[in-house]
Amino acid sequence: MYDVQFHSSAFESFDASEGLLGVNLERFEEVLKLAKKGDLVQMTFDTSTSKLVIHIDGVEFTMACIDPDSIRQEPQLPEMDLPISFTIDEAQISRGVKAADMVSDHIRFRCDEATQTVYVEAEGDTDDVSLELTSDEIDSLVPAEGNALFSLDYVKDLSREFPKSGSIALTFGQDWPMMMEYELADGECDVLAMLAPRIQTD
Amino acid sequence: MYDVQFHSSAFESFDASEGLLGVNLERFEEVLKLAKKGDLVQMTFDTSTSKLVIHIDGVEFTMACIDPDSIRQEPQLPEMDLPISFTIDEAQISRGVKAADMVSDHIRFRCDEATQTVYVEAEGDTDDVSLELTSDEIDSLVPAEGNALFSLDYVKDLSREFPKSGSIALTFGQDWPMMMEYELADGECDVLAMLAPRIQTD
Amino acid sequence: MYDVQFHSSAFESFDASEGLLGVNLERFEEVLKLAKKGDLVQMTFDTSTSKLVIHIDGVEFTMACIDPDSIRQEPQLPEMDLPISFTIDEAQISRGVKAADMVSDHIRFRCDEATQTVYVEAEGDTDDVSLELTSDEIDSLVPAEGNALFSLDYVKDLSREFPKSGSIALTFGQDWPMMMEYELADGECDVLAMLAPRIQTD
Repeated sequence: MYDVQFHSSAFESFDASEGLLGVNLERFEEVLKLAKKGDLVQMTFDTSTSKLVIHIDGVEFTMACIDPDSIRQEPQLPEMDLPISFTIDEAQISRGVKAADMVSDHIRFRCDEATQTVYVEAEGDTDDVSLELTSDEIDSLVPAEGNALFSLDYVKDLSREFPKSGSIALTFGQDWPMMMEYELADGECDVLAMLAPRIQTD
Repeated sequence: MYDVQFHSSAFESFDASEGLLGVNLERFEEVLKLAKKGDLVQMTFDTSTSKLVIHIDGVEFTMACIDPDSIRQEPQLPEMDLPISFTIDEAQISRGVKAADMVSDHIRFRCDEATQTVYVEAEGDTDDVSLELTSDEIDSLVPAEGNALFSLDYVKDLSREFPKSGSIALTFGQDWPMMMEYELADGECDVLAMLAPRIQTD
Repeated sequence: MYDVQFHSSAFESFDASEGLLGVNLERFEEVLKLAKKGDLVQMTFDTSTSKLVIHIDGVEFTMACIDPDSIRQEPQLPEMDLPISFTIDEAQISRGVKAADMVSDHIRFRCDEATQTVYVEAEGDTDDVSLELTSDEIDSLVPAEGNALFSLDYVKDLSREFPKSGSIALTFGQDWPMMMEYELADGECDVLAMLAPRIQTD
């Protein structure tokens, strides 16, 4: 699950009443690729046709919207116990994911409170991987004893969106979801990704 | 349909009587890729074996030719009424094609004589695209009222061959074929591509 | 068949008794890709678990080994008569292979002793290719009359591993295997690849 917020500074101008709009993200992404770096993108919602009109350097794209009521509602989040947090460079996570991907479909994040170390681990049938993250690799560690297991495919999908060379704030707890927070576009956009854990049944 | 002409300046030397040669274009293209930029390509037609011998930096490639009589004859062209013409940057056509490709299998070129504007348009089931081309984007416009519809796949194939950042001269008329003319190799090669329209049946 | 030797200068430190280790090359290659250029790779063989423990910048990879007895033994090589040898730039072989690939599944290396020339040749059903290599393209030629035919697929596989812009020493004889020798990593690694010929049955 993603929660993305744009700061007002991300907009050149803004004139809108409150509202909720459903858009086909794939189509929307395609349209935005018509813009070159630095091009302004102008969006107008036509309330009579319920279409979003997008202007990009001479191109007018008229896009049908999706009724927000037809989109799956976001789940209610329970109170969560996430005592472990730290920030880490995107490249370190990518390395851990790449190494884990060689041996398993799952990846474990584990914190050792005593040694103030976070481990990214994966266990295969014959081969194992462990990436040790100490204060050299991570910042602002709030340590606690705990670990959580995640589906590697989902972690791969999420980490692919991390900004290159960016800083990622991770928060997790014993068998709780993991929160991954980072900034895009020079801080004009805040992203929070949340990933549910895989609960290991022994 | 393509009509490609090489100027004499494109040749280092030339010694041939008039003739017609059929070649397998795919094979010919592969062979020419053996040449590095700046390499001379020497071609000799061996009339005894009916083979084309191609020399490229030490490589001798002997290529069987195709009997020209076995190749489909080029069609007789009717007199055409193509009152609209203009030149445009390759990048603008690429953008129009890219945008149209999101919503439809067809693309329309339309000229509004009054506003001296050319539109590249595509209509999908729910989404529409329109690229407006004014004197900012086009040169040498000879305007007239008219529009023509084309298969997007063919336009894509043809536009892929346009020289990057090159200038393309387009000529069209109401439901007539479109002519696309451009230069390659610093003007040593003139290309004319012709594309038949799709006639819309309402 | 490959015979690869690392010089002692390729190692930062080395502490081992003599031994034979079987490793899954594909897996090993994947693991090594975790290293960035300049990273040290530390390998320890754990004799109690028969696993190879690989450390690369914080990542610990524990890899199961393969029983050397279960790997196919290298063949006994007969005495060979390989009177022709020369060195050549990797780019020239690539060109010959690329050209041959257009017309045939086989490639012939042929030496003409009188003209001190080596030919790389391929014959197709309708098209032929010949790359002539004289003293301009090859060094240290020891000429003799002879030629040998090879499966193009194997030559392609082997030549793909040649160092870009590197120098390759080739040795062959009439219908004998070809030896291909080159250096990697600034001479810290010597590679000898051997390819069996295809014997033409007329």
